[in-house]
Amino acid sequence: LEPPEVILNRLLTADEGISLAAAESCTGGNVAARITSVPGSSGYFVGGLVAYDNEVKSRLLQVPEAVLRQFGAVSAECARAMAEGARTLFNADFAVSTTGVAGPGGATRRKPVGLVYIGVASSASTETFEHHFDGDRQEVVAQATEEALQALRRVIGAHLEKSIPTR
Amino acid sequence: LEPPEVILNRLLTADEGISLAAAESCTGGNVAARITSVPGSSGYFVGGLVAYDNEVKSRLLQVPEAVLRQFGAVSAECARAMAEGARTLFNADFAVSTTGVAGPGGATRRKPVGLVYIGVASSASTETFEHHFDGDRQEVVAQATEEALQALRRVIGAHLEKSIPTR
Repeated sequence: LEPPEVILNRLLTADEGISLAAAESCTGGNVAARITSVPGSSGYFVGGLVAYDNEVKSRLLQVPEAVLRQFGAVSAECARAMAEGARTLFNADFAVSTTGVAGPGGATRRKPVGLVYIGVASSASTETFEHHFDGDRQEVVAQATEEALQALRRVIGAHLEKSIPTR
Repeated sequence: LEPPEVILNRLLTADEGISLAAAESCTGGNVAARITSVPGSSGYFVGGLVAYDNEVKSRLLQVPEAVLRQFGAVSAECARAMAEGARTLFNADFAVSTTGVAGPGGATRRKPVGLVYIGVASSASTETFEHHFDGDRQEVVAQATEEALQALRRVIGAHLEKSIPTR
């Protein structure tokens, strides 16, 4: 099975003009690292932001203070705002975001280690996904990275299928 | 031998108040991923920018257009401006930057695959380092990531030694 970043490369190299960006909290740069591991990714990957500090989320990604206060940084609402903010910051067509509790610290009763929200934003809409991963920090980050790339691949795959006229 | 990101964690957890940021081109997020792989890194790592597109380097990191035009994105001058720009963008005390030719594309006679510039900026000064790595894309990125972390560790280690009074 091909890794999602390789499928993305094929889809986006064939379809010139679609650009990507990333805004990562809990994955800490791993999504961008996987995307850019593929030769030719500079043709469609504009850039990524590792928004570890909440101040960076609000100042650079325009995550509303009210979202951080009301729902917290680990929330579907924050993942949505981060993905949309990354599209704007990087002028990209699609953006993926991650925010979660990688552990071992940072967990609460309502937000345990392994809770991760992923967002994918396009000009048409933004989707968010909630995941509960098992394992330690390294395993949570690895699974969150994989799922973020899979979500991005699904959304872009669906977008491209819709835009191909039936013969 | 301890990895540099673990040494950084020990140095920066002991010395509260020093913050870090990263601006990555050729390493594509791997420096931030290594730093954030260590539990507790959210205490000192503010954020990172993966500045793949030159427009992102100039708009978000304030790399002067003249630097990109005269020296190119793969240059000591660009690494310096990226590190200084990351300090400003993230309001961080120290910032590390990477820019290079990871390959297989993008090489020229003067700038072969494996040429990587690393920058480390502090409030006191900015240092840049030139490296010539062997290997394929994955190997160049891995070596550039390791050297960037080692450079950051060296500069911060020296800074902390200077700031410890002799007894």
